[in-house]
Amino acid sequence: MSKGITQKSEDHSKWYTDVITKAQLADYGPVKGTMVIKPYGFAIWELVKDEFDKQFKATGHQNAYFPLFIPKSFLAKEADHVEGFAKECAIVTHSRLMSDEDNSIKVDPSSKLEEEIIVRPTSETVIWHMYKKWINSYRDLPILINQWANVVRWEMRTRLFLRTSEFLWQEGHTAHSTESEAREETLKILDIYESVSKNHLAIPVLTGKKSESEKFAGAVDTYCIEAMMGDKRALQAGTSHYLGQNFAKAFDVKFQTDSNTEEYVYASSWGVSTRLIGAIIMVHGDDNGLRLPPSIAPTQVVIVPFFKNDEEINNIKKYIDPYLKELESKGIRILLDDREKISPGFKFNEWELKGVPVRIEIGAKEIESNQLTIFRRDINQKEKTPINTLTNYIQDMLDQIQQNLFQQADKFRKENTFTVDSYEEFKTVINKGGFVRCGWDGTEITEKHIKDETKATIRCIPFDESPENKQCIFSGKDALHEAIFAKAY
Amino acid sequence: MSKGITQKSEDHSKWYTDVITKAQLADYGPVKGTMVIKPYGFAIWELVKDEFDKQFKATGHQNAYFPLFIPKSFLAKEADHVEGFAKECAIVTHSRLMSDEDNSIKVDPSSKLEEEIIVRPTSETVIWHMYKKWINSYRDLPILINQWANVVRWEMRTRLFLRTSEFLWQEGHTAHSTESEAREETLKILDIYESVSKNHLAIPVLTGKKSESEKFAGAVDTYCIEAMMGDKRALQAGTSHYLGQNFAKAFDVKFQTDSNTEEYVYASSWGVSTRLIGAIIMVHGDDNGLRLPPSIAPTQVVIVPFFKNDEEINNIKKYIDPYLKELESKGIRILLDDREKISPGFKFNEWELKGVPVRIEIGAKEIESNQLTIFRRDINQKEKTPINTLTNYIQDMLDQIQQNLFQQADKFRKENTFTVDSYEEFKTVINKGGFVRCGWDGTEITEKHIKDETKATIRCIPFDESPENKQCIFSGKDALHEAIFAKAY
Repeated sequence: MSKGITQKSEDHSKWYTDVITKAQLADYGPVKGTMVIKPYGFAIWELVKDEFDKQFKATGHQNAYFPLFIPKSFLAKEADHVEGFAKECAIVTHSRLMSDEDNSIKVDPSSKLEEEIIVRPTSETVIWHMYKKWINSYRDLPILINQWANVVRWEMRTRLFLRTSEFLWQEGHTAHSTESEAREETLKILDIYESVSKNHLAIPVLTGKKSESEKFAGAVDTYCIEAMMGDKRALQAGTSHYLGQNFAKAFDVKFQTDSNTEEYVYASSWGVSTRLIGAIIMVHGDDNGLRLPPSIAPTQVVIVPFFKNDEEINNIKKYIDPYLKELESKGIRILLDDREKISPGFKFNEWELKGVPVRIEIGAKEIESNQLTIFRRDINQKEKTPINTLTNYIQDMLDQIQQNLFQQADKFRKENTFTVDSYEEFKTVINKGGFVRCGWDGTEITEKHIKDETKATIRCIPFDESPENKQCIFSGKDALHEAIFAKAY
Repeated sequence: MSKGITQKSEDHSKWYTDVITKAQLADYGPVKGTMVIKPYGFAIWELVKDEFDKQFKATGHQNAYFPLFIPKSFLAKEADHVEGFAKECAIVTHSRLMSDEDNSIKVDPSSKLEEEIIVRPTSETVIWHMYKKWINSYRDLPILINQWANVVRWEMRTRLFLRTSEFLWQEGHTAHSTESEAREETLKILDIYESVSKNHLAIPVLTGKKSESEKFAGAVDTYCIEAMMGDKRALQAGTSHYLGQNFAKAFDVKFQTDSNTEEYVYASSWGVSTRLIGAIIMVHGDDNGLRLPPSIAPTQVVIVPFFKNDEEINNIKKYIDPYLKELESKGIRILLDDREKISPGFKFNEWELKGVPVRIEIGAKEIESNQLTIFRRDINQKEKTPINTLTNYIQDMLDQIQQNLFQQADKFRKENTFTVDSYEEFKTVINKGGFVRCGWDGTEITEKHIKDETKATIRCIPFDESPENKQCIFSGKDALHEAIFAKAY
């Protein structure tokens, strides 16, 4: 135990929960499997969300809001869709409470609904119901809509941020007049997912296509970004689906083409969720807690003053105030932790747990020497710097931290991604932990065998695959694809 | 009919629906009473939301997220609370669907929940359940949390933006160590509500206290902002509640004071919702559609070019581009409507319906004279201006429009707020439409008589009341309060 949390190497799962609890990111709600996102966790989510939102809008997407409630009959319309994942869900059957004889509260049986209502597990069905009303001609296309919303999937084995009954996400739903345009959209979004992951979350991701058995049930093709967590397991961090005409056919959405024929609309859908917070924790966290990339850190720089009385803290504030103002004017998010009766050591501990990238320590000694002590959370080291060049120094340091966290994660992933020569070797690697990149004969039966035996699944067929002259690691047949196998969350 | 919508004076209710439909603000969803907020309506909401959010954060509040689902038993804990409004709600009873013999989908009876779950009508109960875990000592206080969320109340008679089964809102929930601090918070938020309404939505609001029968059932005191709509009816646009120790007692949330005693926590809660979009429509709209205050207009300036071919539109773009860039650099939200095969007249109509504050018309004539034609939506008039001073001219005009819309609304409200000398006169005014400010004896029985007879309710007891030497308009007794009566949405 250091900092009061389990060591990462000792018990990764317990370490993960400890970080969430001690850094005050989230908590379980009273209904089993629900999550409360606490202010610090939510502030991270807001920064992540804002970055995605900016990029969606810059590429012509608009936000909208569709209802939480879906008629049960809608889920039956796209049969693969419901087979795929919509079975475990929250079902609303009544609309009124009443007081019982003993003054307790019960459900009013007379308020039973004619048709049950499903709390959205995803919004394709309700959105395509609306698109039918909105789309008549090619002039109405494309529709490029996104929504930020809560969705519900009844989960038995829950884990904060990774798998909870309710979670927050964005879901984009686009409609196009041609297949090529819809496919282009699907990949454009995957690019945004990849670039925000790399440049803001500092998470290197693999991009590629899902196998048939791993894809979204309503999709023709599912593309994904996949990341390696600190325990070498994979996490699906975002998906972008080319839906073909599946939902258009299910909801009878046709449009008049510019040559006056009628055709079904082509579609995409895509989403990332609060699961990304889980990825940030598991990719960057260390034995001292969270380490946040500056781009998404609610506080980028915390100032911890050494003081014993009002006079001392006032002196420190007076001394440092103009420098803090300058940092703030550059858009740097800073916090002066002037809480009384809490020791600097306790504060160090707390802000390290919360992953604040940079800490400035300042007391009488620092003021005298005009030198500040600076702690870098990514490498857990202290340096000294003259105060008169503080702004440039901090800006550079934040850039370095952002890059270094990415590079550390990238190095870790590369070191733990293997090519193997035999299925025996495959099993050894999977057991030890890591990604395996190898040939696959393209059959579901092989995929299932491997999964049953090793728990490893195909995370993606990478865009840069070269299956030529390779054999399937399991069957020995000619490889149809190269695939990335790993155990996953 | 002008612009294809019903005249406001002819049928206010139909006019309201027409504006929402034609300006593409919202639509009904498939489940009765649910609402789809379309991109244009949602863009307005985003601007409204951002302004509130900025002011909440500037006053020390943090966002968080609490679960959608509440155990049924929680609603019984604060008895007044459930009596008040939580009876009509969505109740989740099952968690799984299954395929029937005939391949249709039905609810799996074996998935019946042990305890029914309520979809949150408001989050006091689930939040106070969490606060019990989070609050131990005075050091943990205050807690100043807000969340942006969807809530559900089962509504029979729905109306887009004003009353729908699901709506979007923010709900603030704060916890304090003293009554005075909690009361101060309650009124601080009311100030924010008032100031955003006035300065951004351009809506003058009355501020005051609700009567016992109109307040939030779980509150000690409810304060509100009330606005007058174009049909002279009142709309409650936001409420801020001092909750006393009601929820703290219901959820047993005590804290250790700094003198080592134990006390229940004091609380406030407060909210505004997408209902504000309804207010914006009804306060500012006219026979030509929506009129948006520039501060919350997704597009503040639309440019409609006159062109017949590529060469003409290219010339126009080349000519105006540097001016548009300058406008954008000042943070002005502009849109060049260069759609082909759609006449300028059609575009005028569309943007007037959508309430865009300023329209710039430009064709060969304008380029030749270096004079642009400018249309102001608030007064529906055109002017001309030289292009070389465009930026200042537009900035000034947007300021004027913002102020003018507020002044028009303020004048309208003043002209339709009456003092009366007798109950007969009271009834005449209420019937004709408008607010009545008069003495009230403070009894619920009087309030009920008036409501039953005239449908008018007490909208608020204004802060600047002076009941001295006044009589109750109904009973003739000495007035305990001055009150504002009106029919309300």
